[in-house]
Amino acid sequence: NHRVDARSLRLYRGYYSWICQWGLGLTIAVVLLLAFVERPSSLSISSDPRHRSAPWQPPCGFTESIEMVCLVVFCLDLAVKGYLIGWEEFRKSKWLIAYTVVISFSFIDWMLSVSMACDEKLRVRRLIRPFFLLQNSSMMKKTLKCIKRTLPEIASVILLLALHLCLFTMIGMLLFAKSDDPKKNGEWKLHFRDLPTSLTSLLVLLTTANNPDVMIPAYSLNRAYSIFFVTFSVIGTYCLMNLLTAIIYNQFRGYLLMSVQTSIIRRRLGIRAAFQVLSCQGIQQAAEEHVAVELVLKTMARVQMKSYYREAITKEAHKCADVGYMDREQFRKIFDELDKDRIKEHPPLPQYQSPVLQKLQVVFSHYFLTILGNAVALANVICICTVLVLNAEKSAAERDNYIIEIINLCFILYYLFEVCVKIFAFGWKGYLSYRNNIFDGFLTVLLLGLQITIFVTYKLPFSQWDPSSHSILSLWEMVRLINMLIVFRFLRIIPDIKLMALVASTLLDLLKNLRAFAGILMVVYYVFAVFGIWLFEGAITPPSEMSVLSNTSMENITSNFSMECGTYEQLEYWPNNFDDFAAAIMLLYNVMVVNNWQAFLEAYSRHTTDWSKIYFVCWWLTSSVMWVNLFVAVILENFIYKWDRSHSCSVTDVERIRYET
Amino acid sequence: NHRVDARSLRLYRGYYSWICQWGLGLTIAVVLLLAFVERPSSLSISSDPRHRSAPWQPPCGFTESIEMVCLVVFCLDLAVKGYLIGWEEFRKSKWLIAYTVVISFSFIDWMLSVSMACDEKLRVRRLIRPFFLLQNSSMMKKTLKCIKRTLPEIASVILLLALHLCLFTMIGMLLFAKSDDPKKNGEWKLHFRDLPTSLTSLLVLLTTANNPDVMIPAYSLNRAYSIFFVTFSVIGTYCLMNLLTAIIYNQFRGYLLMSVQTSIIRRRLGIRAAFQVLSCQGIQQAAEEHVAVELVLKTMARVQMKSYYREAITKEAHKCADVGYMDREQFRKIFDELDKDRIKEHPPLPQYQSPVLQKLQVVFSHYFLTILGNAVALANVICICTVLVLNAEKSAAERDNYIIEIINLCFILYYLFEVCVKIFAFGWKGYLSYRNNIFDGFLTVLLLGLQITIFVTYKLPFSQWDPSSHSILSLWEMVRLINMLIVFRFLRIIPDIKLMALVASTLLDLLKNLRAFAGILMVVYYVFAVFGIWLFEGAITPPSEMSVLSNTSMENITSNFSMECGTYEQLEYWPNNFDDFAAAIMLLYNVMVVNNWQAFLEAYSRHTTDWSKIYFVCWWLTSSVMWVNLFVAVILENFIYKWDRSHSCSVTDVERIRYET
Repeated sequence: NHRVDARSLRLYRGYYSWICQWGLGLTIAVVLLLAFVERPSSLSISSDPRHRSAPWQPPCGFTESIEMVCLVVFCLDLAVKGYLIGWEEFRKSKWLIAYTVVISFSFIDWMLSVSMACDEKLRVRRLIRPFFLLQNSSMMKKTLKCIKRTLPEIASVILLLALHLCLFTMIGMLLFAKSDDPKKNGEWKLHFRDLPTSLTSLLVLLTTANNPDVMIPAYSLNRAYSIFFVTFSVIGTYCLMNLLTAIIYNQFRGYLLMSVQTSIIRRRLGIRAAFQVLSCQGIQQAAEEHVAVELVLKTMARVQMKSYYREAITKEAHKCADVGYMDREQFRKIFDELDKDRIKEHPPLPQYQSPVLQKLQVVFSHYFLTILGNAVALANVICICTVLVLNAEKSAAERDNYIIEIINLCFILYYLFEVCVKIFAFGWKGYLSYRNNIFDGFLTVLLLGLQITIFVTYKLPFSQWDPSSHSILSLWEMVRLINMLIVFRFLRIIPDIKLMALVASTLLDLLKNLRAFAGILMVVYYVFAVFGIWLFEGAITPPSEMSVLSNTSMENITSNFSMECGTYEQLEYWPNNFDDFAAAIMLLYNVMVVNNWQAFLEAYSRHTTDWSKIYFVCWWLTSSVMWVNLFVAVILENFIYKWDRSHSCSVTDVERIRYET
Repeated sequence: NHRVDARSLRLYRGYYSWICQWGLGLTIAVVLLLAFVERPSSLSISSDPRHRSAPWQPPCGFTESIEMVCLVVFCLDLAVKGYLIGWEEFRKSKWLIAYTVVISFSFIDWMLSVSMACDEKLRVRRLIRPFFLLQNSSMMKKTLKCIKRTLPEIASVILLLALHLCLFTMIGMLLFAKSDDPKKNGEWKLHFRDLPTSLTSLLVLLTTANNPDVMIPAYSLNRAYSIFFVTFSVIGTYCLMNLLTAIIYNQFRGYLLMSVQTSIIRRRLGIRAAFQVLSCQGIQQAAEEHVAVELVLKTMARVQMKSYYREAITKEAHKCADVGYMDREQFRKIFDELDKDRIKEHPPLPQYQSPVLQKLQVVFSHYFLTILGNAVALANVICICTVLVLNAEKSAAERDNYIIEIINLCFILYYLFEVCVKIFAFGWKGYLSYRNNIFDGFLTVLLLGLQITIFVTYKLPFSQWDPSSHSILSLWEMVRLINMLIVFRFLRIIPDIKLMALVASTLLDLLKNLRAFAGILMVVYYVFAVFGIWLFEGAITPPSEMSVLSNTSMENITSNFSMECGTYEQLEYWPNNFDDFAAAIMLLYNVMVVNNWQAFLEAYSRHTTDWSKIYFVCWWLTSSVMWVNLFVAVILENFIYKWDRSHSCSVTDVERIRYET
């Protein structure tokens, strides 16, 4: 359903080429990243209002001109897309129409903002920028559709949750009403004073973020009160919340399989069509449809695909070369090669002439060497650990970097030796064909480079160096960097432990399938962060005299400020604010993780209005309730798909099973 | 594989009869409940050491004699079981041997404790009591086996988690090492001072229990430090922890289906055997095996099964009555009735003679009445809510209970009217055949009873009553109770909202399948609580002068105690201790919920030794990591099973699919 004349096809090919798509992606990334630079700019070292410097503000017109370039690129993109699918299809596609609307709206808003010399309050187009990301990824659109399908069921669980919450709030208010004995009023005073307070207390308890605290005043009076809270948590948190996970997972079950199936079916269709086209071109008898093998080979040479698959298909096609043509079944079969996973072949070991070298090669290519290497890496990590423990209390000047430096040098030399020996045993190509070795070799080279830098800068012996004199990084910091790299290098043991390798490879696979979800998460974060900045920018300002006080008395946080424990102010959550984009994202992340989010709820409802709670509850619902459950569903789906695949045979096999059920 | 002579069979039947199994269950419950009564006894109103009274201590010999009775019952149980399966089988069954060992050990320990006049320190048999529960349930044994099968994979993920934790701890210690500038030492001082502190900080971060707090000192210096913490959380908490869920769920996938299948296969086997036996008894020609229908009917009359199924099978069997006998296929088919769900038939509406009554019946049996009832219930709840909000700040004496009492009276009279009208429309049996109506009617009768009690006690008009004079419950408390019941009654709306009904019925179904898991949870709680009491009984004692202080100054918790925020002492977690069994269970629950568990970790490692952390980490691993994931797996399994079943047809259908795949 798009134009098929030669010029359009060339345009199509050009548009979907690697370079064009990459450029488009880059443009989207630039537009999204603008949020960090635009006013309020995030380019300060700290987001803490107590001691942040004034951030660098871009001059007016700087971000605007970049944005204009991006918008022009989007216009081009829209024009090409529209041309390729034709006006009829364009009108039917909601996404493309929305794209048009969003671009034109952005232009209007851009002009407004330029005409006001960048002084406008609201930059509405920031809110709709993530649309560009959504629009460009078919996976994300598919995922969105999937989420939309789940919404009614999610809504029913959330309704049940709301009912649960309301009922327990009322029962709680009745249970912990104000009594005549002031000693027994603790629970009422702190958590059930009025309807909003009670609702908030129990809503937060639903996320377990105030778990023992909320029941302590009542529980210390009478054990039986704990039943109320435990019942609430068990039904709400454990049953209903997990039921939500189950419902979302149930919808996403088969999601991966389905998308794999769809792509297979599309490919089959494509192959069938290709056969039809090729058989028309070839001059054959009308009764049976055949395709000449040379024609296939010629076409194959012009198709863009991975060289590995091309070779395999060409090889298959050559098998029919003696007949000269192939029928439909044969044609289909040669493309089955695409389903087969590429089995990585390692280049052969280099052949050495001298028997001594040959013996050495046998020794060095032995599995034993890998284990020894792991043991040495472990020893190194333990060394660093010991030094760390010993140095924990010492100040930078007191630390003896000399010994650790010498120890590290020895280890790094061993690593170098290991790398050389492996290259010798496997040859260059053989060495690099293991991903593990690339990781290992790269880190070793980096470590060596750093070590040499240290020697050049500080010379030997170290004892004479002067901590204040030298360059950008002090010796201690260089050593620290080396240590971190060594610790990081220790990850090389993972592939050598079987069970861990399985789990780690699942995680890596997950990353590939997670892009669509990560994109949707980004969109949600972006929209909420922009909203948050509109609503709450500069809402919380630290009292200036207190800022000095808390700076000087970092030592005794416990001292007698007149502020309650557990509040935003006491916990010094100042850097979590909505004053710039990066800080807003971190705040949203912290609310997503849910722990202690009541501090934010409470602080913002105190500094602004009670209605600010709605914003946080909305964010909690979308991020922690919806998205985290989606994430769990995706992990489940991925793991089970991988498991089933490794236990049955191939995709087509799984497909067959699917159809039968 | 058990004895089949007539006496043994009668014994078998007696042993597995309702009464015997119930008695055994009761004995197990009694033995387990003893832990609440035994020293240290939990029979005090509060577990708060600051204001708990001395609990009632049972006299020596009281719990011991009860225990002896229970042990004798277990001995009998063992003897019967052993006799029934015979010595050969007995020797092979590990569970029965363990049962013997546990019982004999309990006897020895019991004698020791009696000889020491109940003054012994350790009561080891308390630790092994939960074994009786495990041993008695075949479902729990099966579940345990399932868990055992999953352990290797869980171990690999936990190993990966440990590696992740260690690497990040080292990188964290390197990153937040003590620097020369004391202002920049906040992070080091609070969370990365030495190796155990750093490990604990990051372990707690893995559970997100100290999420924003742990990063605040570093984050307020430089935004970039947050990357470290976010990476740690995303990999550890979101990826690895959820992968654990996936792995556990993967093992439990098909668990329910499998158990259903097994029971079906067993039944088939049983039916086949029954056919064989019956056909031997009947005198038939040798060529084909037949069973006389009368014989089947006679046997059916003696079999213990639900009368509904018996009727259905008898009806089916009667269909073959004209032939006089049935072959194997027919015999199997009549028992297919067992697979069919019982379709509940409501008794017919009563027939009234008078046309007026008939018209009234039509009106009252209309669906509209239910909706009206729900609306009235909602109105009532809203009324209560309004009164609650208005009364929130008033003390008991100021509250005007008169109005709410009158309002409630009106509503209750309406409810009574609704019940009567429904009984009139549907008849007694028709009314009671709806579960919803039973719930409704019971609550209405209860409310009416309470209301009458109020009238009897306080008479009309209320304004004259004297708050101090009357009886056990004050008027306010009676009204409170009525209000709670009314709120509870509001749950009747659930079945009338379709989506909510589905979700709620899933939850109810869940409860049935959850028994095995709840049992295992109970066992784990029991063992850990007993251990905890051994290790930490009386470890934390509130400073006595402070206890007075905090009692009088409940108002200003914020005042200047010299204690840090977020500690056990400041949060007043006193009632969470290991001083008795009930308190220990609540403490373990609070650690399981995970939020703020660092307060317990920190307090117990401060008051006892650092090694106490191991106990808490073990409990966290078994409860929060293992059990909560198991729970999620069970919920997923249940929901998906129910979903599949409601979308395909019947058990046998699902079974067929299962076999094909």
